[in-house]
Amino acid sequence: MSNSLYTLAQQLEQAIRTSEDFQQLKRAYEAVRRDETAYRMFNHFRQLQLQLHEKQFTGAAISPEEVEQAQKAMALTQQNEKLSTLMALEQRMSMTIADMNQIIMKPLEELYRSFAE
Amino acid sequence: MSNSLYTLAQQLEQAIRTSEDFQQLKRAYEAVRRDETAYRMFNHFRQLQLQLHEKQFTGAAISPEEVEQAQKAMALTQQNEKLSTLMALEQRMSMTIADMNQIIMKPLEELYRSFAE
Ligand SMILES: [Ca+2]
Ligand SMILES: [Ca+2]
Repeated sequence: MSNSLYTLAQQLEQAIRTSEDFQQLKRAYEAVRRDETAYRMFNHFRQLQLQLHEKQFTGAAISPEEVEQAQKAMALTQQNEKLSTLMALEQRMSMTIADMNQIIMKPLEELYRSFAE
Repeated sequence: MSNSLYTLAQQLEQAIRTSEDFQQLKRAYEAVRRDETAYRMFNHFRQLQLQLHEKQFTGAAISPEEVEQAQKAMALTQQNEKLSTLMALEQRMSMTIADMNQIIMKPLEELYRSFAE
């Protein structure tokens, strides 16, 4: 990778790190970490989510009970203020990262599109 | 997304677009496009690749004949100088994009890792 691309990517990384959105997300994680109940709920929910994603990925059967269990865990986390805040901030950050990836992918996408025409 | 993140992402996009690697890739595509034989071989190879990826993705059976057909098409494209050049440049560009994504993902990855500890 050329120096100027590397330097710009690192500037972007630093800008993400110091952005208000990222700092808010970091504080939301710290708040959950300090709260044993929220921390346990969050890890339980993440674990269930991971199991479901693995099953979807490998094509394994997902029982209605597993779906119900994940929905219940999701509803519980949404009722916890620290967790609902964390998840809203996570979603915003994911959208920002996705937007940046989309911008960076534009030159290649345009090139592929013009070639396929 | 904040203005400064957006501006930096756009600067990175412009830097990719004007980079020597991207300009070389663009010229390699144009050279293939102007060469009917290379263009046909490339599109044929891409089509076979796409079919195999779709089958892998949906879990459909891939016959030994299909694997052999794709390997033959790959070998033929490698023997064509314009196509082997194009594919080497594509690979380099993909690595650059992957490197940049990795740099940009660092803040979030560090945050998740420190939370999981
Ligand atoms: Ca505690
Ligand atoms: Ca021609």
